[in-house]
Amino acid sequence: MAHITNSVEYGIHCLLWLVYVDDQQPSSRDLAELQGVSPSFIAKIFPKLEKAGIVRANEGVRGGYRLAKPPQDITVLDIVDAIEGKKPLFDCQEIRGRCAVFEGDPPGWATSGLCSIHKVMLQAEKSMRDTLAQETLVSLSQSVDRKAPNNFSPKVNVWLSDRSDSRRRKIKRKGS
Amino acid sequence: MAHITNSVEYGIHCLLWLVYVDDQQPSSRDLAELQGVSPSFIAKIFPKLEKAGIVRANEGVRGGYRLAKPPQDITVLDIVDAIEGKKPLFDCQEIRGRCAVFEGDPPGWATSGLCSIHKVMLQAEKSMRDTLAQETLVSLSQSVDRKAPNNFSPKVNVWLSDRSDSRRRKIKRKGS
Repeated sequence: MAHITNSVEYGIHCLLWLVYVDDQQPSSRDLAELQGVSPSFIAKIFPKLEKAGIVRANEGVRGGYRLAKPPQDITVLDIVDAIEGKKPLFDCQEIRGRCAVFEGDPPGWATSGLCSIHKVMLQAEKSMRDTLAQETLVSLSQSVDRKAPNNFSPKVNVWLSDRSDSRRRKIKRKGS
Repeated sequence: MAHITNSVEYGIHCLLWLVYVDDQQPSSRDLAELQGVSPSFIAKIFPKLEKAGIVRANEGVRGGYRLAKPPQDITVLDIVDAIEGKKPLFDCQEIRGRCAVFEGDPPGWATSGLCSIHKVMLQAEKSMRDTLAQETLVSLSQSVDRKAPNNFSPKVNVWLSDRSDSRRRKIKRKGS
């Protein structure tokens, strides 16, 4: 499995729809079906995004998700950390003190400070995270905007409105 | 499991001993036992390093491993790629064409060029790899040298010589 998993890929795609919507609050099922991915998979991702303060869930007939803050304040790194947890790129086992020459009693110099191999891996991880922190939902969304025709965003909004109306009608029928 | 695994950690530690040795060619078992890690684990790593042109194996009684090129020409990235293979940080599933609005027939603009999410992940991977390419076996070795007392390198060489002598004696006894 890749370090940055498909949960992140699917999560970002669905979050990008929240940048597109006007005044709607799609459910995680709406977002999953709009994106053409498994609703149960997305249903597990959105509570993590909510816990991280990236989306906000509103309950009720018109309830659903919206972004919890402006999309320019949500970085790709925020989303990766929210979904994956802060899993390290490298998990140092600290084997430097095990050298046979130390005969089971490693001297202070051998184990003091950070292991130089671990240090390089942490630097590599920082470079990766810095790059992810430079991109936001807005910069990703703009790259779609540049390609999509003008009628794409309205079409998405109509699709989501239809879903929302259909959900309300169903609830009304059940209640009547 | 972390993206950069313990095989890399153990492999680099053992390679650093090859920077330390004078005119010796330790076996992968010698290197593993000097480092205090599993010989069978290291025995699986060194053929990969040999295939990548990082170490050279010589056969015979005095046979074993040595670096195949100067340690300043062996980067941490070379070692990671040799041991892990070039596994991607992110494995894009290309779900952008699945949007329900496209009704199963995504327009060209939606799937042309690189997916913007994939692009960000490739940039992050490049940042990580660039950092790993900046460090070599020499820079890592120097960071150990700065900490270790002057008698450490001779001690390691004596330990390895003793192992090598003991191996030769065993082979001689078997042959006599």
